[in-house]
Amino acid sequence: MNRQHVVQALLEKAHVHVNGSQPGDIQVHHDRFYDRILTEGSLGLGESYIEGWWDANQLDEFFFKFHLAQLDKAVRDKRLILNALKARLFNMQNQRRSTRVAHQHYDLSNEFYEQMLGPHMQYTCAYWRGTKDLAEAQEHKLDLICRKLQLKKGERILELGCGWGGFAHFAASNYGCSVVAYNISEQQVAYARRWCAGLPVDIRLMDYREATGEFDKVAAIGICEHVGYKNYRTLMEVAHRTVKPHGLFLLHSIGNNASVTTGDPWFDKYIFPGGMLPSVAQLSAAMDGLFVMEDWHNFGPDYDRTLLAWQSNVDEHRRQWQSTFDERFSRMWRYYLLSLAGAFRARTIHLWQIVMSKRGLIGGYETVR
Amino acid sequence: MNRQHVVQALLEKAHVHVNGSQPGDIQVHHDRFYDRILTEGSLGLGESYIEGWWDANQLDEFFFKFHLAQLDKAVRDKRLILNALKARLFNMQNQRRSTRVAHQHYDLSNEFYEQMLGPHMQYTCAYWRGTKDLAEAQEHKLDLICRKLQLKKGERILELGCGWGGFAHFAASNYGCSVVAYNISEQQVAYARRWCAGLPVDIRLMDYREATGEFDKVAAIGICEHVGYKNYRTLMEVAHRTVKPHGLFLLHSIGNNASVTTGDPWFDKYIFPGGMLPSVAQLSAAMDGLFVMEDWHNFGPDYDRTLLAWQSNVDEHRRQWQSTFDERFSRMWRYYLLSLAGAFRARTIHLWQIVMSKRGLIGGYETVR
Repeated sequence: MNRQHVVQALLEKAHVHVNGSQPGDIQVHHDRFYDRILTEGSLGLGESYIEGWWDANQLDEFFFKFHLAQLDKAVRDKRLILNALKARLFNMQNQRRSTRVAHQHYDLSNEFYEQMLGPHMQYTCAYWRGTKDLAEAQEHKLDLICRKLQLKKGERILELGCGWGGFAHFAASNYGCSVVAYNISEQQVAYARRWCAGLPVDIRLMDYREATGEFDKVAAIGICEHVGYKNYRTLMEVAHRTVKPHGLFLLHSIGNNASVTTGDPWFDKYIFPGGMLPSVAQLSAAMDGLFVMEDWHNFGPDYDRTLLAWQSNVDEHRRQWQSTFDERFSRMWRYYLLSLAGAFRARTIHLWQIVMSKRGLIGGYETVR
Repeated sequence: MNRQHVVQALLEKAHVHVNGSQPGDIQVHHDRFYDRILTEGSLGLGESYIEGWWDANQLDEFFFKFHLAQLDKAVRDKRLILNALKARLFNMQNQRRSTRVAHQHYDLSNEFYEQMLGPHMQYTCAYWRGTKDLAEAQEHKLDLICRKLQLKKGERILELGCGWGGFAHFAASNYGCSVVAYNISEQQVAYARRWCAGLPVDIRLMDYREATGEFDKVAAIGICEHVGYKNYRTLMEVAHRTVKPHGLFLLHSIGNNASVTTGDPWFDKYIFPGGMLPSVAQLSAAMDGLFVMEDWHNFGPDYDRTLLAWQSNVDEHRRQWQSTFDERFSRMWRYYLLSLAGAFRARTIHLWQIVMSKRGLIGGYETVR
């Protein structure tokens, strides 16, 4: 059986047809596509997409089928082993290396992100309960976090990794809290400082590991995916040393079905260098003896909808960015957003909010949804 | 400082006074009490209570203060080390040993349990939302489990460890399901078979590890505390091999703040031989790669109320049992129920319901409370 037949047989297992008319079907424009998938795995799949060797009727639906059939396991790159070894030998997320992520990804044009993410500049999963509007769904998410943290007027909040300051702004404006936030992306910090001007919000251009002080509540929203598996415990320790004895810590993170010590090679190269997704087991081991787990919420399918909304926003403003970002960038970005959407839809990855207390809230913690 | 002063200083740390009038205060009737606590730790504390060496104004409140001040760590028996070693060298929960628990504890008079537990014969935590009545709270718990498992008419349910058949009876009567249940206590099995007669319920006097077949949903309610840390993975594997690809598994268990490989020596000797409480980390490691964690609910404070209700029922029927159970048994039982109530109140231990799916429910899992 030649390579084309091998790949097509794999795709048929996932009910994906070459040149078919179903949403998850693909068109192959270059004969070497099949060879490349077999030799380069997930990296080759992504790179050949960027290069225009293939297209899908609906890329998210292709990846949904791809993950449902567990083809991600079939095309795992041999490079993964090397990556895993590298991750074990070196701490890829020491403070110097972390800034690479900040530059490569978060220091892209703020205007581009404003258009993609909407008015709250939330670069994490929205919460779609009761709405079909991205801006509202992001407000729901922000409010969900505030309600889960039981924020009260006058409380001091620590935020580890604060993006463009959307949560800090929301908690200060809507709940009357003061916020100290840590972030290592210069562009994000500058933006957050402007946005939160006049509010009791202190944005620090510093690594989360440098956080000091004592706070009523601690939030870590979308940072855990960047810290690397060697630092899950560190993240918990930072939260533990900074939260008051009767305080609460909320961790909002994408999660993985199984424990890994390396990220996907395509995402590592093109989107989030050094990023990887924690498992329930890894986060639980990291919190063992430090925190009481009060509530663990899994709403991954909301990220599917969020990613589709982002892609739709990007498509809407496409013409404006044609001279800044070339076709390769545009395809890369689409692959990034829609391959993730498909993975969330197939439940290969998840969105978790975990509420933790230091000693357990007396009387118990009431679930908030 | 003599031993009496050492112990009193520890108790003062927990705001417990000897001969005081506060609910958590104690009366010491025997001078050797202090010596015994220091040399025999938690086992000595419990045994000396059985023997009438000391009393508390409110035993549950004493244990609440005791745990809040983390005195449980201070009086940990040296014997623990030996127990831990024993647990590591031998599998204390092989199938032969497991029957010891069944005989020592669950084969006590059914009538006694009926009076203590109420009409649903539920020997696990009730769910008190919207009620102050134990029977109603147990119905709420049973219904909560059925709703979390999304039971539908005609579905086949597997229950691993079924007590007196209360859940099997409830699911068959109220949700139109058929149930196959495994239990190794002869008295419980005989009772469950009588109770569920005429319903599509098959109660098997067999170890949970022998379960076979394929089921829409699997429930394990209050068995995990008995299986021992070496079998957490086994329990998950049994559920994994018996649940359908799109099915759900609900685990209802008491949980521990930290990972341990041995039980409390007093509880091991008097109440549940070989029992121990899993941590979030231990259960997460056990489910890693097998299940998708859909929802993790912590409502430990409901067990505090449940235990108080059980003790109140025991007190109410005390006279009837005076000739069967002597004063020692009565004190032992009170110590068992109320020391646990205090530990739940202090959030040293928890009640977890974890909903797991095999591959992730497409569309997501809606939280039920």
